[in-house]
Parts: sequence; structure tokens; C-alpha cells
Amino acid sequence: MTESLFLEQPVDLALDNYLKESSQFILEAETINVEDSLARILYEDILVKYDLPAVDKALIDGYAVNSKDIAEADTNTPVTLKLIGEANVGDTNTFTVSAKEAVKVSKGAIMPENTNSVVMPEDTLTEGKKVKVFASVVTGCQVAKKAEDSKAGDVFILKQRKIRPQDIGGIIGLGYRQIKVFKKPVITIIPTGNELVPIDIEPDPTQITSSNSYVLRGFVEQLGGIGKIASIVKDELKLLKKAVSKALEVSNMVIISGGCSTGTKDYTLRAIQEIEGSKILAHSVAMKPGGHVLLAIVNGKPVIGLPGHPVSSLTSFHVFAKPVLRKLSGDPRSFWQITKDTPSIEAILTKNIKSPEGKEDYVRVRLKELGDGKTSAYPFTGRSSFLSTLVKSHGIIKICADCTALYEGDVVDVLLF
Amino acid sequence: MTESLFLEQPVDLALDNYLKESSQFILEAETINVEDSLARILYEDILVKYDLPAVDKALIDGYAVNSKDIAEADTNTPVTLKLIGEANVGDTNTFTVSAKEAVKVSKGAIMPENTNSVVMPEDTLTEGKKVKVFASVVTGCQVAKKAEDSKAGDVFILKQRKIRPQDIGGIIGLGYRQIKVFKKPVITIIPTGNELVPIDIEPDPTQITSSNSYVLRGFVEQLGGIGKIASIVKDELKLLKKAVSKALEVSNMVIISGGCSTGTKDYTLRAIQEIEGSKILAHSVAMKPGGHVLLAIVNGKPVIGLPGHPVSSLTSFHVFAKPVLRKLSGDPRSFWQITKDTPSIEAILTKNIKSPEGKEDYVRVRLKELGDGKTSAYPFTGRSSFLSTLVKSHGIIKICADCTALYEGDVVDVLLF
Repeated sequence: MTESLFLEQPVDLALDNYLKESSQFILEAETINVEDSLARILYEDILVKYDLPAVDKALIDGYAVNSKDIAEADTNTPVTLKLIGEANVGDTNTFTVSAKEAVKVSKGAIMPENTNSVVMPEDTLTEGKKVKVFASVVTGCQVAKKAEDSKAGDVFILKQRKIRPQDIGGIIGLGYRQIKVFKKPVITIIPTGNELVPIDIEPDPTQITSSNSYVLRGFVEQLGGIGKIASIVKDELKLLKKAVSKALEVSNMVIISGGCSTGTKDYTLRAIQEIEGSKILAHSVAMKPGGHVLLAIVNGKPVIGLPGHPVSSLTSFHVFAKPVLRKLSGDPRSFWQITKDTPSIEAILTKNIKSPEGKEDYVRVRLKELGDGKTSAYPFTGRSSFLSTLVKSHGIIKICADCTALYEGDVVDVLLF
Repeated sequence: MTESLFLEQPVDLALDNYLKESSQFILEAETINVEDSLARILYEDILVKYDLPAVDKALIDGYAVNSKDIAEADTNTPVTLKLIGEANVGDTNTFTVSAKEAVKVSKGAIMPENTNSVVMPEDTLTEGKKVKVFASVVTGCQVAKKAEDSKAGDVFILKQRKIRPQDIGGIIGLGYRQIKVFKKPVITIIPTGNELVPIDIEPDPTQITSSNSYVLRGFVEQLGGIGKIASIVKDELKLLKKAVSKALEVSNMVIISGGCSTGTKDYTLRAIQEIEGSKILAHSVAMKPGGHVLLAIVNGKPVIGLPGHPVSSLTSFHVFAKPVLRKLSGDPRSFWQITKDTPSIEAILTKNIKSPEGKEDYVRVRLKELGDGKTSAYPFTGRSSFLSTLVKSHGIIKICADCTALYEGDVVDVLLF
């Protein structure tokens, strides 16, 4: 049979080979309003347009002075300055200060001409139109100098950042109203299987409501993609081939749910092989569950076949589809972004787990808070097909290929999924 | 002045007192399609409707047998069974097996009548209409018994879970098409300040484009709320009072951005005091930056005044508005959910930080990967008003009130924001 051409590959090798193909991916940009850019990926560097601040500004409420005038001031010998006015945030500056004069300023106000420092109110005493200053200041004290924050032309944010709320504020503050971001990749999910019925049809006892596709769409959306669910395809080579070809026309990536095993009704491999321009990179990888995964590229677009069982499907998706989707969405840079996108927790295993040698093993666990900041992880090792274990589990642990067991009491790293 | 009535409160006390008021919050439910429920908060427990599986099902591809028939089978003395047919996934079961008979089954197929176990293909040899079995099996081997996964009436998911992609699959699998979730809370953000201009107007050098409101809206949306930005309100008591009253009519929470300090143009406190049914819980808390925060309740709805400076605004939002918003959105249960919602990373401080005694101090840090899984954190200790530090920082560290310094080399916990 055809699939025997493909040997079971180690997970890392299969993934590396597959990600190498990502250089072919065509990533497009689009221009959007800054205020609509939350969680989008920057397509180009954001440069500082104008000096920030544009003018010298007071950093606190106080009295704007020329530091020279109060150089001799101290608690016992205050210096008295003439108070010539008040400058508030939003006021256009009209004051020019002469020797021994001061202006009351509020935080954010433009510094009056000939002043260079702000004296804190607690170091002063105001008497009518005069202010006594009881302390000297360093020149520039409590003043944001023109361009001190950012200089025109500086790189403000490097491209490929996943935009956070505070970045939106920063970019607006620079004067940008629109920015270029990567287009959201469109991922079409094709549910396959004679046993599946759509969500709006009551299944008979032999049928199953198609639900994996909604799970996959949820993950696609969490990762910043647009998930589209195609109609259910029966286990027929022709139909599947047609569905994949059609999906490729309108998508950046296609996921086929089910039909990737080596059973007589598993047509995914053949369907993809028969599509012009296809290249199969892996069929069957050394992992459990989810080893029956198919990794292909069709004319520069990734096509992934996932197993039909919910647990296997989810595991393969996380190991293979997620990194590909990251690449397709513009590859959000930075190690800290990865930490944000894949939160994990340390936990103490409550039960021994045997693991097959030579295969990466992914085990769902249910967490429990033990107090003292400690957490326990109960592994679901039976019945991987049960949907309920996916719902009851809070995360997943990875047991690497050369490890054959983990033991009660071991501290494990749980990926929260 | 009125605000002198309110002493500076410790952060924890202020927050605890404020969250006590959350018992007054009116949280509403709405019914939505399961497939649209990603990241929504469950309003009621999800119960198992029918036994799962509804019938006994094969867990692997193999041969369905009655284990008694092959009790004596081993490598040297195989038992030969008559192969009476094949049952695939999606087939309605029509087979009834007599003694010494077997049916070829695929994974997920309904178990034929009078069979109880599935023999693996590798323990068999097929010859035409006969199958030789070379190993005995434990009764129930590789069969998912009716109701073994979940029993009708069991609690499948407890209320207040933030729905994950896999939960959507599980709930659909149970037969639900619609579920009750908490309504998304509506939070109106009111930008205030004479210096502010809307995003579509070019600011002159004395003006600032209103951007804090977009930052706050971004955080509100990340937390599952609906953020609405009201028109900019000038520093005038009457206008602010009117804007807050109007916002309260259509919102579950109101955030006033700016005007919370004790300057002559800070009207937030007075505006709220003059609204009927208002209760001020805190004005000024012992933290830096962001101490000038106003915590109020107006007729059972939280109203929070945040400082106008971007860094102070963001810090106060995280400390006070975030936990309140959690309560308003249905209070997603579970410690692991909190870990997911507030990712953090351990890092080594690269510079000493002084911190004021008696005040909680929040310091922005910029992270750098050091290799070996280690990370350094460079603290931005100057110029808290600079927007750029918000953009350049990757997270925030908290220095508790009784700690007056952190030192270079200290390992700190960085909240990624």
C-alpha cells in the first residue's frame, strides 16, 4: 500500500522538515486602523515620526524656574521668586520668564520660556504673587526634555510584534492612525467520515455529531487565524480530493479532520497525493496519541491531516498545526510572547505513567490546588478516545521519546490548553 | 477640600473592600449557540444528557469476539472463529454473534450482539471466512462500555468555566446546541481632559491625542468585556457628572480616565459624589505609580477613576479594574484559569531598584533572553510618564509595601502584560 512508503518519523524531525517549507508561505499585509489592531501582528517596524515630547514639559505639579535663580536656596535661606502666572496642561505657552521669576505649572504643561526645572510644592511657600523656594534643584529636574522620550526616526516597535493594548496607545501617541499588519490566515477545516452528521441534525445511535471541527476552529481563532468549517465529506476519495482542492483556493492552510489512519476507508493520503503540486512530508510520526498525522504542502500551502479521535486530533494539532499557524500569521517574535501564548504550570504527578519507548507521549492531566502554591496533576492514561477526558483535563504533559515512565511525585511541566 | 476626607489606603485593603461590593453586581445570562461560546463564561452546570457512549463501541480496529470463546487461545493453540461479517463506524449494527463466531470491527464501530471484547489484528490470522486467534483477552478488552465515559445526569462541566475549544467539542458531543453564558459586561470608558483631542483630529503642540481609552478598551476586551469609548469630556464638573450618569445607564461599569488627582481641575471625585446613590470607597491608595485612583459604587455599579498618565493608568487598571471586571464577567473559576489569564515569567534583575516604604511599587521591566532558559529584567525606573516605556517593557514587577529595595541579581516574578 502507498502509505508504507512513509516510515514513522520522530516528531522533532518531522516538524523541522515541515517548518522548513514555511519559507514558501505567502504572507500578505493589510492596512488597518491602529485602534482595531489588538492582537494583530505588525508587518513593518513602527518608526518615531516626531520628537517626543515635542516640547519641554513639566513632569509634576510645581513651579517652573530657572535652576540658576535658586542655586543658593536652602531651608534657612529661601530664595523669593516673582510668580508671573500659571500654565496648565493644554495651555499654549505664552510666558517668558525673566530672572527671579517663576510660573506655577501643572503636570504635563509646556515649560515656559527660560525655565529649565520644576520645584516641588513641598519645597515652596506661596505668598500672593511671590513664591519662596527652600531648596535648590538640579538643572532639568522634573522636566521631560524635547525628544527625551523618543527621537524622530528611531524604531519604536520592531515588526512582528503581536500588538498589545499599550502598544495601541503608543502608536496612536506617535501620530499614526493606520498601520500595516499581517493578514489573518484563513484555515479551512474539512470534517470527514461517514459517521458524522452536521450540528443541526439529530444523530441516530450509529452517528456522531461533527464536533472536532469546532474544537479546531476554536484553537485557530485563539492563534489569530480565521477558521472556516467546510461541509462534512463522506469517506470517498473523489469527494475528498475535490473538497481539499476547493478549500485550497480560498485558504492559506487546510486541515482535514479524520481519514488519516491506514484503514481501508482512510483516503486522506491518496486524495492529497492525487492533487497536482502536492508533496507529502510525513505520514505517521512517533507520538501517542495523534501519530497518524499527515503533513503535506500543496503549491506552497500547508495541508495537514489530523486523526479523527478528539484526543489524537487535539494533540496532533498542538504539535504540528500550531507552529505552522504561527508562521502563517506572521510569526510573532519574542520568547516572552511564546510564554504568553503557551502558559504552563509546574505540578506534582499523582500516579505512575508508563510510556512507549521511541514515541513522544502526550498525557492529559487534571490539576488540583494543594495549597502553598503547589499543584498536583492526575494523569488520564486510559481510554484516549473519551471526549470527557479532554474536558476534564486542564493541561497536557509531554513525555519525550526516550523516557519510558514517569513516577508519582515527579514534578512535571503542564501546558495549559 | 473634600478629598482630604479620604486617607491613603493600603492597596489590599482598598481592593478587598471594593470587591466586597461585588455582591451587588447584577450579572445577567444569555443563551447562545455552543459553537459561538469560545472564551465565554458558563452560567450554569452542563449535565450529561445521555449515556456516553450510548452503546458498547470498539476502541480499536480488530475482531469483536466473546472472550469466553477464546479463553484457551495461545500462540501454540489458536482458536479458530467463523468470520460472519464486518462492522464499520457509522454502520447500524445488524450482527448477532453465536458461539465461536467473530465480526471484523473498525475503531468506533458498535459492538455486535453477544460480543464483549476486541482482539487486536496482530494476534490473529485471517483465512477467508475464518480467523485464527492466538491470544486470549480479558473480558471487555478494547471496548468502551455504554455510559463508561459519562452517565446521564452527571455534571460534565461546572458553571463559571471559561469555555475552551475542547469544551465546545465536549458540549456538542453531549447533544447541546445552545447554552447559557454570562452576558459580556459593558464597560464605558470616559476620557477626560482639556488637552485631549479625538483620534481623527490633528493635535496642536499643546494637545494630546486621546489614546489611554484605546489602551483600556484593549484590556477590557482581553478580559472578555465590551469596551465602549465615550466622547472626550472637558475638565468641567457639570459635563463630567452628566457623562458619568449617561454612561451608567448603558453600562455595567464606568471607567473615567483622568481627573482623579487632587489638582484644581480634577473633578472626578466631586462629580461622582454629586451623583445620587454614589458611594466612594477609596480615593488615593498607597501605590506607585497609579496611587490617585478613585473607587466608587453607584447604585450597584462599579465606577473607577484612573489617573491620566498612561503608566499610572495601566497600573491602576491592572490592580483594581481587572479583578472587578473578572467579577462582572461571571468570575471565571479555577486557579489554572488565573495562570492562563495572567502569564508570568521569572527573571533576574539587572539593576538595583529603590522603592518607597509603605507603598506598593509597580515597576516596568524589559526582558532579555540570556540562554539556558534564563531571562534578565531591566527595570524602567525613571520618567514614568513616558509612553515609550510602556511599549518597550514586556511586563511589570510588584514590590510590596514593606520592601524598600530590590537588588541586581534578585530573581523576580514578572507579570507579562
